[in-house]
Amino acid sequence: MSLLSIGTVAFDALETPYGKTDKIIGGSCTYIALSASFFLPRVNVVAVVGDDFPQSYMDMLQSKNINLEGLQIKNGEKSFFWAGKYHNNMNDRDTLVTELNVLADFQPSVPESYQDCQYLMLGNLTPQVQIDAINGLKNRPKLIVMDTMNFWMNVAMDDLKRVLKMVDVLCINDEEARQLSEQYSLKVAARLIMEMGPKTLIIKKGEHGALLFQEDKMFYCPALPLEDVFDPTGAGDTFVGGFIGYLAKTDDISFENMRKAVVYGSAMASFCVEKFGTERLFEISESELNGRVNEFKELAKF
Amino acid sequence: MSLLSIGTVAFDALETPYGKTDKIIGGSCTYIALSASFFLPRVNVVAVVGDDFPQSYMDMLQSKNINLEGLQIKNGEKSFFWAGKYHNNMNDRDTLVTELNVLADFQPSVPESYQDCQYLMLGNLTPQVQIDAINGLKNRPKLIVMDTMNFWMNVAMDDLKRVLKMVDVLCINDEEARQLSEQYSLKVAARLIMEMGPKTLIIKKGEHGALLFQEDKMFYCPALPLEDVFDPTGAGDTFVGGFIGYLAKTDDISFENMRKAVVYGSAMASFCVEKFGTERLFEISESELNGRVNEFKELAKF
Repeated sequence: MSLLSIGTVAFDALETPYGKTDKIIGGSCTYIALSASFFLPRVNVVAVVGDDFPQSYMDMLQSKNINLEGLQIKNGEKSFFWAGKYHNNMNDRDTLVTELNVLADFQPSVPESYQDCQYLMLGNLTPQVQIDAINGLKNRPKLIVMDTMNFWMNVAMDDLKRVLKMVDVLCINDEEARQLSEQYSLKVAARLIMEMGPKTLIIKKGEHGALLFQEDKMFYCPALPLEDVFDPTGAGDTFVGGFIGYLAKTDDISFENMRKAVVYGSAMASFCVEKFGTERLFEISESELNGRVNEFKELAKF
Repeated sequence: MSLLSIGTVAFDALETPYGKTDKIIGGSCTYIALSASFFLPRVNVVAVVGDDFPQSYMDMLQSKNINLEGLQIKNGEKSFFWAGKYHNNMNDRDTLVTELNVLADFQPSVPESYQDCQYLMLGNLTPQVQIDAINGLKNRPKLIVMDTMNFWMNVAMDDLKRVLKMVDVLCINDEEARQLSEQYSLKVAARLIMEMGPKTLIIKKGEHGALLFQEDKMFYCPALPLEDVFDPTGAGDTFVGGFIGYLAKTDDISFENMRKAVVYGSAMASFCVEKFGTERLFEISESELNGRVNEFKELAKF
């Protein structure tokens, strides 16, 4: 099944205890599309970059079956840029630079050839842009998954609540779930958030795994304990990209299949953190992924 | 199989966002024995109290098949007393009072009738007392499980390293594992800690579950997301008491059976936090426990 991913394609500059990078390719849509493209013959992208975004990066994405027809290139403008530095524990990070650039007035435009997409992934963006993206589709997709962040809860809660009513799955981290629901218990938080619109909720807990909620059903996928986390950038986007990519591939949105999709997403994320930026996502083989999924099975069985 | 539990029997005064208690029964050995006794016809205790410890508490423990022959009662002395207050998140707490009292010069003495015990649980105590307890047994038990805490890493690391060489399973929390190994990655930490002596390591992560390591094998048992955590006191001891109780009942110390034991320990801990202190542990029925274990199965399956 066809997938449309809307989000940011951008530059990141990263610093971790293992080293640092100059500007490299980043952005929510980049990680989502790279992860989902592992499962699908084509991933359609809607995003915006400036004319500083190199052709070589676009070639890299296209080599992974990522369709850039919906990538707007703004002449005379610069791409979104984020720079961050991770602390030694790799869980906390400081944002050093955020330059919105082209993102400041991004108007998503969905090409005619994408209109048949049955799976829509809304990466972290202004809630109003997420609403515009959904409204830009002639037919409602079979499944809409969205990410967001605490920043939008602080500055655009009304818009965020509107988009929550329009989507099927919300994917946020534990801190965001607590802020959105004003509840500490994640089980209570999940119930309140699902009452806001999304029938299904994923709460990402980083090194502690991920929780999937729907009605009164719960699934807890542990994270694979790793020897080294080299760079956590993009792990959450890689997770949700694998999640929706697996669902689109199998075209089965039952809760039982979503359990498997969470495991595949977790496996993809466990690769992502092994190298800087997107590097590792270009190398994963099918047998490596299957091996990793088997490690999750071994980890969880009793 | 017979189980010997050595640790503290004490008074706790607790304050959580849900309320507060006066002095109630507490102590590592109390929670461990109550949890393990669910699985066994008899749990033998070695501990010390003052003559302020009420007969009614001893009657309560004996009603749950807990054998107090090894409970020393020191005339003219007071029982160990701890008071603590939990923050709103229930993960952090402040210690308000610690009165060692009888614990200051505790010399464990193992009654002759306990000498056949095949399973030994060493609750959190001075490492030297843990060593004395092991040396007080004529025959080495089939399995020795121990708990400890960061305090002993700060003030008695040499003794702690000695006792680590004498035990089979160490059960500590993630913060303690990182301090003991001086490693952030729990997978690397586990390898280094197992090189210090214990062949098997359990890392408790509270609301994030528990990890079990042995050689290159790993098991991650999620914690059941709960609506309310009323009082987390004793949850870690209840967990390890259920773990060793289940192992002693089944008399199977294979890694595969330890996976199940971790689940049973987690299920017992999930009950413990539902009421203040030990209260909930007196009420659990077999069908409730089996129902809770099934919830863990449902939670983890994919």
